[in-house]
Amino acid sequence: MTRLLLATRNAKKLAELRRILERAGVSGVAVVGLADVPEFPEAPETGATFEENALAKARDAAKATGLPAVADDSGLAVDALNGMPGVLSARWAGRHGDDRANLELVLGQLADVPDERRGAAFVCAAALVTPSGAETVVRGEWRGTLTREPRGTHGFGYDPIFVPEGETRTSAELTPEEKDAASHRGRALRALLPCLEELTI
Amino acid sequence: MTRLLLATRNAKKLAELRRILERAGVSGVAVVGLADVPEFPEAPETGATFEENALAKARDAAKATGLPAVADDSGLAVDALNGMPGVLSARWAGRHGDDRANLELVLGQLADVPDERRGAAFVCAAALVTPSGAETVVRGEWRGTLTREPRGTHGFGYDPIFVPEGETRTSAELTPEEKDAASHRGRALRALLPCLEELTI
Repeated sequence: MTRLLLATRNAKKLAELRRILERAGVSGVAVVGLADVPEFPEAPETGATFEENALAKARDAAKATGLPAVADDSGLAVDALNGMPGVLSARWAGRHGDDRANLELVLGQLADVPDERRGAAFVCAAALVTPSGAETVVRGEWRGTLTREPRGTHGFGYDPIFVPEGETRTSAELTPEEKDAASHRGRALRALLPCLEELTI
Repeated sequence: MTRLLLATRNAKKLAELRRILERAGVSGVAVVGLADVPEFPEAPETGATFEENALAKARDAAKATGLPAVADDSGLAVDALNGMPGVLSARWAGRHGDDRANLELVLGQLADVPDERRGAAFVCAAALVTPSGAETVVRGEWRGTLTREPRGTHGFGYDPIFVPEGETRTSAELTPEEKDAASHRGRALRALLPCLEELTI
């Protein structure tokens, strides 16, 4: 069975990635996370684009493990913030990974921004790098608008303030299956499927 | 003597505006600040551009007082933040007017951004609206780079983290006269001078 490395230490993101691949019917692949590769040195994300960061992470992981590696870089692109937090989504409030502080900061920054200018998109770049050096990067986007208060307990990151187009619930109020079917990460990973299937041939 | 209203409640900005106009030799004009018009209702700045906000403030002030009014809207446009904080500069950390929190947040957001991508510009839009309804808006820009630590005690806002092109000091380490000669606000106000001089004819 081919082993595939999902290059993330974020447990919730890992669960989401696994779930999307399983639901897509990717078979013959055993998914391992970075937590299973404790010696792996994690480089800071310094790229200017989601694609650059996803590729860099997948390259590092493939090189360090000899396994085909999938990495994603994703974030929230807010219209009234000229597309930011963007690649800085995880450290928007100034330090890494404080979801609550990050989303509260966006709400504070947008306090005076009227409803008609509260559009945003979740963006995900997903990269696959094989040990032989084959590289693929794809992008998924999910448009919506931002609330004025967080709602919902599912998901992670900015999910509690993002209402997808065609929805009244936030993405933190969707079931995991509903989210995967529409989300930026679901779209990006499904776009990688043809390449993932080649690995198992 | 013509009275001219400088529509700001920010005492440091008012001092800077007065100083620039005096040094430019604008004569026959008595400058009053918004603090002298306590009943003036200040509208939130909800525009998407500096120009929109400056015009809105100058219009409101001219209408409320019957005086010709100058207003500015200014901020820091950081390349690695796609031009933000921009019009949200004063409330970047989530509440209005906390200079220290705002600049610390920018430094935190840019912690992993390498030196070659730390470019920024101070931008100022200045608007003049006369009681007869004549409107003029101009823009001044001041390019530079961002430090990793604040330095200097002059100025206000993001001055302690901004090193203007051709300088090694931050704009908070320049004398007020040096700052005025080069700054975004100095440039914008000097571009308004021909219109201001017409007021006194």
